[in-house]
Amino acid sequence: MTIEAAMDISSRIETALDLAVSHAESPHGPPLLTEAIRYAVFPGGHRIRPRLSLAVAIACGDRHPEAADAAATAIELLHCASLVHDDLPCFDNASLRRGRPSVHAAFGAPLAVLAGDALIVLAFETLARGTMTCAHVLPILMTTIGRSVGSPHGIVAGQAWECEKTVALTEYQRAKTGALFIAATAAGAAASGQDPDPWRHLGERLGLAYQVADDLRDVLCDEAELGKPIGQDAALHRPNAAAQLGIVGAKRHLEDLVQSAVSSIPDCPGAPALRDLIKAQTKLFFPKQLALVAA
Amino acid sequence: MTIEAAMDISSRIETALDLAVSHAESPHGPPLLTEAIRYAVFPGGHRIRPRLSLAVAIACGDRHPEAADAAATAIELLHCASLVHDDLPCFDNASLRRGRPSVHAAFGAPLAVLAGDALIVLAFETLARGTMTCAHVLPILMTTIGRSVGSPHGIVAGQAWECEKTVALTEYQRAKTGALFIAATAAGAAASGQDPDPWRHLGERLGLAYQVADDLRDVLCDEAELGKPIGQDAALHRPNAAAQLGIVGAKRHLEDLVQSAVSSIPDCPGAPALRDLIKAQTKLFFPKQLALVAA
Repeated sequence: MTIEAAMDISSRIETALDLAVSHAESPHGPPLLTEAIRYAVFPGGHRIRPRLSLAVAIACGDRHPEAADAAATAIELLHCASLVHDDLPCFDNASLRRGRPSVHAAFGAPLAVLAGDALIVLAFETLARGTMTCAHVLPILMTTIGRSVGSPHGIVAGQAWECEKTVALTEYQRAKTGALFIAATAAGAAASGQDPDPWRHLGERLGLAYQVADDLRDVLCDEAELGKPIGQDAALHRPNAAAQLGIVGAKRHLEDLVQSAVSSIPDCPGAPALRDLIKAQTKLFFPKQLALVAA
Repeated sequence: MTIEAAMDISSRIETALDLAVSHAESPHGPPLLTEAIRYAVFPGGHRIRPRLSLAVAIACGDRHPEAADAAATAIELLHCASLVHDDLPCFDNASLRRGRPSVHAAFGAPLAVLAGDALIVLAFETLARGTMTCAHVLPILMTTIGRSVGSPHGIVAGQAWECEKTVALTEYQRAKTGALFIAATAAGAAASGQDPDPWRHLGERLGLAYQVADDLRDVLCDEAELGKPIGQDAALHRPNAAAQLGIVGAKRHLEDLVQSAVSSIPDCPGAPALRDLIKAQTKLFFPKQLALVAA
């Protein structure tokens, strides 16, 4: 995958997100809500999930570009919704996100609850809008993405495990982080008219890799670099791979997961380019401090 | 509409809701979340919105019964989600709902936020599941129902008006209450393969009527009868038709709205039965104290 192609992916995602968010805006709507919704989505983080989804759709031939954009957008909107709700005072009470006040810190908890709700609704509306010329892919996109977000196995369920006295650790991590990565690869394939199932393994491995990288960042980075509070896992008694395996062990685990992900890419016209892209992308979420750690 | 037909509507709705909620449950999911989701939906209130939606679908010929059930179910799940979030400490802080502890009072605010989120996702998943044999109605159901819930004009936006310093009153009431009633009638028609637009007026009038009835109940009923705190509009400085028009004026306005609603029903095979049903249903939400008020 060339730099130009990667830039094209970024540009498609930002354009599609902007269009989707504009549908939630109106001069007659409540101004603070619409401001909070846009604030929750822009400027974004690395957009890892939608980039992954769109990259898979392109590797599969990009047969329905609007559906692929809609799937990527829906996944990012749902990710943003989960961040807004997870940051609420009744959960992590995080006042910082992406280097600036979190939505509830900037707008108050009521508007943060509502902005998250509106983003969930907008995600599904976006799928309907993006499949007007290829309605046959709408059901599979909805069920694939819906399953990754809702109860019993999606990100909402993942967050809910934090409210249980006994946590099923594998189920927790799969739901909280893995599910949306699996949806990203599966929905990308489905948006191009391909069977999504062979693509789940790629998403699952990358989700696990991302979780390990996130655990390492929580331990290795400083707050300014991370754009959110550090040491949260220890403070909130959450499991952390770096704490369990040590930093060297966690780094090795992360490399193995990326290798397994890349090897799992199904045969398709864009497989070689997708492999290159994923290698380049995953480097981005390795904390730079890891370069100093002996393998 | 016979009593048997009305009972059939109730039975279809409860069965469809139970099936939908069961899809959010799993022995491997987080137990408290799934408990909170079921608690938020059962036992229900009057199920006014899904009854209305299904009654319209039946009046239009009930061409796709599973889609009609799904539309009614999605609308009720979204209504339940809005109640769970509106009751949160950061909004109304209501500890009572339908005569027992509200979801956050019973499960805590974190699980109430997540149960609401999960219900929103489940509503859209239900639409996808219910249209597997008639996928051509899925896009119109999604856009009709999505618009009534999200930003800028749905119930989320309605609730967000309460966070603004200056409230656009008509827009507030239309979004907070009217939107989901409009979706109920429009989606009912769409689920039977009919053009939803001629059915919007019926939903809009009934939504306004319901708002006026709710305002009257807030003033006239006691807490035990209402199953939730009374006098909330005055306490929370919200507009109330009974306070603005007086009880007699509000009662007359309510009767006019119901009459206008019934007159607006488009020509269709089941129009006479639907008119009877709506007259009978709307009587249920007139507070019984109104019988003592001179017209």
